[in-house]
Amino acid sequence: MTDSPYWNPRHETMARKDVEALQVRKLRNLVEWADSQVPWQAKRLRDAGVTADQIRSLDDLQRIPIMTRDDWMQGQVEEPPFGSNVAVPRESAIRYHMTSGTTGKTPIRVLDGMKDWEWIAEMWCYGLWGFGVRPRDVLFVAFGYSTFIGFWGLHYAGEKLGCLTLPGGAMATDQRVKQIVDMGATVVASTPTYALRMAQEARALGIDLAGSSVQRLILSGEPAGSIPATKKLIQEEWGARAGDTAGMTELGTIMIYIEEVLDPESDRPVAHGEMGERVVTSFGRGFIPVMRYRTRDLVVKVPGMSCRCGRTWDLYEGGIRGRVDDMKLVRGTNVYPRAVEAIVREHPEIDEFQIHLYTAEGRRDEIEILVEIPDQEADAGGITARLEKELADAHEALRFGVKQVDLGTLPRFELKAKRLVDDRIVIGTEGERRAQV
Amino acid sequence: MTDSPYWNPRHETMARKDVEALQVRKLRNLVEWADSQVPWQAKRLRDAGVTADQIRSLDDLQRIPIMTRDDWMQGQVEEPPFGSNVAVPRESAIRYHMTSGTTGKTPIRVLDGMKDWEWIAEMWCYGLWGFGVRPRDVLFVAFGYSTFIGFWGLHYAGEKLGCLTLPGGAMATDQRVKQIVDMGATVVASTPTYALRMAQEARALGIDLAGSSVQRLILSGEPAGSIPATKKLIQEEWGARAGDTAGMTELGTIMIYIEEVLDPESDRPVAHGEMGERVVTSFGRGFIPVMRYRTRDLVVKVPGMSCRCGRTWDLYEGGIRGRVDDMKLVRGTNVYPRAVEAIVREHPEIDEFQIHLYTAEGRRDEIEILVEIPDQEADAGGITARLEKELADAHEALRFGVKQVDLGTLPRFELKAKRLVDDRIVIGTEGERRAQV
Repeated sequence: MTDSPYWNPRHETMARKDVEALQVRKLRNLVEWADSQVPWQAKRLRDAGVTADQIRSLDDLQRIPIMTRDDWMQGQVEEPPFGSNVAVPRESAIRYHMTSGTTGKTPIRVLDGMKDWEWIAEMWCYGLWGFGVRPRDVLFVAFGYSTFIGFWGLHYAGEKLGCLTLPGGAMATDQRVKQIVDMGATVVASTPTYALRMAQEARALGIDLAGSSVQRLILSGEPAGSIPATKKLIQEEWGARAGDTAGMTELGTIMIYIEEVLDPESDRPVAHGEMGERVVTSFGRGFIPVMRYRTRDLVVKVPGMSCRCGRTWDLYEGGIRGRVDDMKLVRGTNVYPRAVEAIVREHPEIDEFQIHLYTAEGRRDEIEILVEIPDQEADAGGITARLEKELADAHEALRFGVKQVDLGTLPRFELKAKRLVDDRIVIGTEGERRAQV
Repeated sequence: MTDSPYWNPRHETMARKDVEALQVRKLRNLVEWADSQVPWQAKRLRDAGVTADQIRSLDDLQRIPIMTRDDWMQGQVEEPPFGSNVAVPRESAIRYHMTSGTTGKTPIRVLDGMKDWEWIAEMWCYGLWGFGVRPRDVLFVAFGYSTFIGFWGLHYAGEKLGCLTLPGGAMATDQRVKQIVDMGATVVASTPTYALRMAQEARALGIDLAGSSVQRLILSGEPAGSIPATKKLIQEEWGARAGDTAGMTELGTIMIYIEEVLDPESDRPVAHGEMGERVVTSFGRGFIPVMRYRTRDLVVKVPGMSCRCGRTWDLYEGGIRGRVDDMKLVRGTNVYPRAVEAIVREHPEIDEFQIHLYTAEGRRDEIEILVEIPDQEADAGGITARLEKELADAHEALRFGVKQVDLGTLPRFELKAKRLVDDRIVIGTEGERRAQV
């Protein structure tokens, strides 16, 4: 097996027409399952006039309603806490993951059953194997191991594939760097920001990472993994090849899908080579049917034959190119300006505010909230401290700096407010900057 | 299955003579495997005149040489980094765990293969199921998820058993407490000290833990889980039943064994009901043969029939009763005074020192090192800071306070030095104090 370039040669090199026939068959099963098990899905399908037996080609996909993150959150309001789109009793779930929501303090809540969990590990194996990871590798996972999905799937895939898998949970950066070197790790998984942070720490410790045994970096959680200049910097500092992965809590990180690319305005498919919004239908979900889910990520799909690897699957050239909405990714965490605003607005003492993103020490993305508090009697210190805590709690413990600024410092808006200022340095060209998430 | 009180009714209620026949058969296989795959074991067995075909009854166990933690560490010196007792090429390992060693900065290094890993999860399932944990339970794991073995086995068992398993990796205490309550956790795993810490945090947050959905606590890593008064306090604060587990990194936490109880001086078996040292032979190790491994833990074995649960397996009445050696357990981490001394002695500026264990805020065990530095020109601040870091690095990041004290404050010794002072409060009676680890 070690000699094949593919994890699953049959599926990875299947003729396009067979791939499509398989997709149609799986789509039909998915619609039938959702229709019979989830009343909320059944109503949507009925309203759209879709039944499973009508699914005869991939074109029929277009008739299925598109689902958004707001739909998911609305479902949680209607059927708390896990929402309207759950096909199996909660008792059958073995994992739970959350990510910051779009509207305020409520997170997006996702349950996974045994099937999801096995599927996620299997899907990561496709990716790891294709990137050259083999059973002899020593894989260090720089990740916090909580209910944030992060690299959980990769962790299980590492074990499944037979790598010596080193979980770097509760460890300080210097301990992680030392363990990577001491254990002769050959593959390291982290966010791009953290890869740069570890490189900085290694220099401080007098460790030559570029001369270490690390050969591959698996990046995720931030746009930087697909920004060529940042990727180049990371690769140079580590003396290793970097690969990016695109995941979403709702999808269980990377999974096998039908991948559509739609014009975000008209919802019509765009041609190969054109930029559009990634919309996914997953066949690996055993708990929550995911059909035509809007990712809000911008991608450019090209045919598999544009790569010489022999796989027949389509590719996203350049990875994730940007966002349709105003969501920002800060050190792996989703930040929606409107969710931040909802939390800030719970403090009536705060008159005006600004969300400020910047790059510290030339490499670390930070987020701070600048606030004006006109009432001189107000306990400004207490308010900013509480707000910091509330924002962190709603964003997987992401560190927000909340700073009081002088009255009248922040701009005021009459109509469309623009309270987010993104001063982050994107290492690279102006063209890459436009693609910044 | 949910209705049986046993995870594996066949094994748990097997007649004693069948248990023993099975043990003999497995022991014979183990000796044969160790003999054929590990030259270091083969030599020991040859020197003792033991061959697999001679193993005909459990009495033959006595002829196999006893192995100590020092043997393990010596093996690592002779065949770095994983030692002389490895039966399978490193490339086949999928996990690595370390724990603080007995002599200095070098940890005990343990590799696990796929077989070990599956076995560990299966063994934890026996324990969890017997304690009443069922697939409908929501299990929160308050644990750091690094290469410290801790609750890794429990985590996998939770998934295997079908519990909704919530990993509490990189989270602050208040976030953990909130998630336990928000998610309706029914089972919580932590060290005893941390269970008390979470209870304290819950009070500060105005959360009534005793009124929460938590029904069971799985404790590990500290003696307190088997000290009746501490256990009682934890149970009261959580309004939940607490169960203790005895694990060791070398054994992969809880596993199925032949369990011997020996007089630590004569190495002869003691009778049921008498205190002695726990010595284990494991049948679940797929990487490192563990035969007659000295745990240095003191236990009292009683026959299975002394409990009405129906299991035929012997029991350790009162759990772990104390230690044969001077090892201390501080917040789940093993601390050997001689290992601390070896690290302190690398700083020749330090003239005398003392290891001081105490209880902070009436409930949190702390360790500090008091040092005298006679040379007034020495950079005392730098030395104490470096020493703190070195001690933490050698002890899974355990926090050591290093404090300079006035010259002549610490006692001096002519012959047997006693540089460890244990002022920890043991909640309970004087009798329990004697059993303190």
